[in-house]
Amino acid sequence: MVITTGGLGPTEDDITRKITARALGRRLLLDEAVLAEIKQRFQGFGVAMPERNSRQAMVIEDAKVLPNPNGTAPGMFIDHEGTAIVLLPGPPREMRPMFENHVIARLESRAGSVRVVRRMLRVVGLGESAVDEKIAPVYTQYENPQTTILFNQSEIEIHLTARGRTEDEANALLDRVVLQLEEKLGNAVFSFAGEKMEEVVGLKLSVGGYTLSVAESCTGGLLAQRLTDVPGSSKYFIEGAITYSNDAKTRTLGVEPILLLEHGAVSAPVAEAMAEGIRKRSQTDFGLAITGIAGPGGGTEEKPVGTVFIALASEMGTEHRRLKLPGDRHLIRWRASQAALDLLRRKLL
Amino acid sequence: MVITTGGLGPTEDDITRKITARALGRRLLLDEAVLAEIKQRFQGFGVAMPERNSRQAMVIEDAKVLPNPNGTAPGMFIDHEGTAIVLLPGPPREMRPMFENHVIARLESRAGSVRVVRRMLRVVGLGESAVDEKIAPVYTQYENPQTTILFNQSEIEIHLTARGRTEDEANALLDRVVLQLEEKLGNAVFSFAGEKMEEVVGLKLSVGGYTLSVAESCTGGLLAQRLTDVPGSSKYFIEGAITYSNDAKTRTLGVEPILLLEHGAVSAPVAEAMAEGIRKRSQTDFGLAITGIAGPGGGTEEKPVGTVFIALASEMGTEHRRLKLPGDRHLIRWRASQAALDLLRRKLL
Repeated sequence: MVITTGGLGPTEDDITRKITARALGRRLLLDEAVLAEIKQRFQGFGVAMPERNSRQAMVIEDAKVLPNPNGTAPGMFIDHEGTAIVLLPGPPREMRPMFENHVIARLESRAGSVRVVRRMLRVVGLGESAVDEKIAPVYTQYENPQTTILFNQSEIEIHLTARGRTEDEANALLDRVVLQLEEKLGNAVFSFAGEKMEEVVGLKLSVGGYTLSVAESCTGGLLAQRLTDVPGSSKYFIEGAITYSNDAKTRTLGVEPILLLEHGAVSAPVAEAMAEGIRKRSQTDFGLAITGIAGPGGGTEEKPVGTVFIALASEMGTEHRRLKLPGDRHLIRWRASQAALDLLRRKLL
Repeated sequence: MVITTGGLGPTEDDITRKITARALGRRLLLDEAVLAEIKQRFQGFGVAMPERNSRQAMVIEDAKVLPNPNGTAPGMFIDHEGTAIVLLPGPPREMRPMFENHVIARLESRAGSVRVVRRMLRVVGLGESAVDEKIAPVYTQYENPQTTILFNQSEIEIHLTARGRTEDEANALLDRVVLQLEEKLGNAVFSFAGEKMEEVVGLKLSVGGYTLSVAESCTGGLLAQRLTDVPGSSKYFIEGAITYSNDAKTRTLGVEPILLLEHGAVSAPVAEAMAEGIRKRSQTDFGLAITGIAGPGGGTEEKPVGTVFIALASEMGTEHRRLKLPGDRHLIRWRASQAALDLLRRKLL
């Protein structure tokens, strides 16, 4: 089978339709129904269809048109001398639903009786080598499922792929190994079905009926942005303060100037004061704060780049962690936000 | 030539070294110098090297070792019967500097006299079709440079690739076309060397000596996060407020409850009041605000998902834009932050 993505757009350099037709020795025909749909789509946005978009209504002879509710370029499914040829649009948000809704079933009906099931576990707070040392005794025992460990930002991903005659059989094989992996890794596994850290934390807050506010310095909004990336987060996320300057820390969070003077903005007392300040200001159950040095500048011998303090305030009191994070500015910021979310996650268990 | 990335890690499934050695019929040898470096790297983080990391010191016979200052896995450059075989680590932040510092020069010395130069222009505020209609009359005249238009989130990228006998010759070919493209697109081109929108805005703020604060609702910190992703942003970025709830908008930004009641949180008067409120609170030159409906829930007939108001306050007064953004939650948030940055960028010209 051949699956292509991209090149179905309206511009001169979108050549997938043309080249595929030529390779298969088939004609390109204008599909009036597709053309009408594209025109209607543009009308929905209150504009006339640009003339060149009519190119997207050219369909390869005898191809099955795959509708694209998320864009103007329809896909095509072609059966050519027993080979499936599938043309999909490039943008993932158009391509994925088309693949899931219109391609998988067609391919399955051609496939044999083997079913492949995948699962992904996400791990936090352990290095790649440490994870492997813990779980290699388990996964090396099994050819099926196959296990792959990937390092992605500050998370370790454990990808498992099982084959069975049925989906149930493959899932049972997965369940057995996942259970053993969980025994080895414990609470460090935060996700069993690919959920992101912010989704896990959001669900726990939601279920518990808790509210959260955050105060950020070096992460500059990344912590709030991750939390609010989750649909429905307005239920538990109340307010965020990005206090980059010392003045803002005092003005908005009530951090005492003497703390900033004596300990510096990147310190445990300031992190705790930030967490308590935003919690008090927003009247939330939890206040979560980050202050640190993301670099590339700003490091000192005592507090080098990567030094980050995170703090969590609740009615149970306030606690902090001092971190020394490796990586560049972007990674340090991401890892700091991950560690802060993880601090809250473990409190919510 | 063969270039591989990944599979040089310390775990059981990192098989690139082993498989390459087998394919070339060469031995794997322990390199004591590499081993010493890996041990030293772990010591730098205050831990002993896990035994399995010694695997990363196995080097293919006669391979040139490529140092990796950003990780434990060294790369290798092998000359095998006239073919260059290059093994690079997978993580981009390890792989890219290794490629740039140790591989490019080696490959160049093998290459002929053709030099390839690329450039990327970024465009905002125009659709893919509109961009193509404007610039196709220019780029279709040239085989060299080649032009490709890519759609990436809410930006259009114009990639140009020129070939010449020297870099200067290739650059001259690029310059000629870039000038014509700029004539066609005007102010919609915001980046000529691949800079991101937040870098362009940051540079303009920096050069002008201006300060900025932001107030966000639906983007939940994304605007601040993008701005502070730029090293040195603490010079101009003072404070951000993520006011998700109505209470927070009133408490922190001074938005009058009557405005929220009469117009709703997603409205032009509230966007303007947010921009003015954060500007006043932080005493900055500019206050930039976003309020909108990112979905999937929360839309109404009058204000469907994708309705976003952005506002900019300065000593010249306050202005707003009403946007109707397509896409899912993630895209709407990104596009809203992009439009807000662009509003400020055009003001700073």
